[in-house]
Amino acid sequence: MPDNYSKSYHVYSSIGILRTPYREKAPFQPVVDEKGEFKIVLDKKFTDGLKLINTFTYIYVLYALDRIQIKTTENILRPPWAANMSVGVFASRSPNRPNPIGLSIVKIKKIVNNIIYISGIDAFDGTPVIDIKPYLKELDAKCDANYGWVDETGDENHLALHIKGIPHKH
Amino acid sequence: MPDNYSKSYHVYSSIGILRTPYREKAPFQPVVDEKGEFKIVLDKKFTDGLKLINTFTYIYVLYALDRIQIKTTENILRPPWAANMSVGVFASRSPNRPNPIGLSIVKIKKIVNNIIYISGIDAFDGTPVIDIKPYLKELDAKCDANYGWVDETGDENHLALHIKGIPHKH
Repeated sequence: MPDNYSKSYHVYSSIGILRTPYREKAPFQPVVDEKGEFKIVLDKKFTDGLKLINTFTYIYVLYALDRIQIKTTENILRPPWAANMSVGVFASRSPNRPNPIGLSIVKIKKIVNNIIYISGIDAFDGTPVIDIKPYLKELDAKCDANYGWVDETGDENHLALHIKGIPHKH
Repeated sequence: MPDNYSKSYHVYSSIGILRTPYREKAPFQPVVDEKGEFKIVLDKKFTDGLKLINTFTYIYVLYALDRIQIKTTENILRPPWAANMSVGVFASRSPNRPNPIGLSIVKIKKIVNNIIYISGIDAFDGTPVIDIKPYLKELDAKCDANYGWVDETGDENHLALHIKGIPHKH
């Protein structure tokens, strides 16, 4: 590390919570067409902060992963659906990471006062929301992106079910 | 808010820092072809966590916006480049937000031990890094995304310079 590096701590307070149908189990990734109601209930003091957010198709939601079941301090993970792979935590979207912040992209369905009704999100009911940002085509849609190591698992159809969070049997 | 809501606090510690050429001024958004060296210097204890990250074209970088110059508690902002617009903070990518966490997408150029050399990022030199996540085409590239309210400013070429963070005269 450079000489001037020193570890720093950053405190964020929730701006609202997610309401989702997931109380016991949640998918690995958002399921866009998932049944049930998904919404962000914003602290009412921030309602004004939603002005013009309705003009966007997609938004980012940053949230605190406060229900981690398997706490680990390992830097190397084995995805449950690709047991023969071992990947670095920063090359993975696992919630078991040094700073457990979740990042998902959702569609806005409608907005009623301080509530944003959204498409499916891979988060437990009651998850604290840390930030909401507009997803901007010019900045965020990298249509030349790739699949990285997940292409190497050689089971892309099966993989797609996991990435998309679609329930299935092994 | 639902009855069971209570504000919660979340503490994250830096996993490394950004080294960039920006000491006094930084662009509003990443400049992909920006000259100068941009890198993430990861705390060495996390070096293993980069395993296979080299297989991705793009990564997300989450970082602490610890150099906010104009601290505001307003929910409504006026973008400096679109003075006649007033937008909610959550419909904006402004660093002046309730939880000042930055989110940028960068290209990986090369990785040497605990250092990731990256394309341009809109962050000051020394900015604390909170998380790194792979950008996955299937999950993150929403090629049907839009420009939201920024389309309404009626000055899209000029706007594009701001979105892309390209220096220019008014």
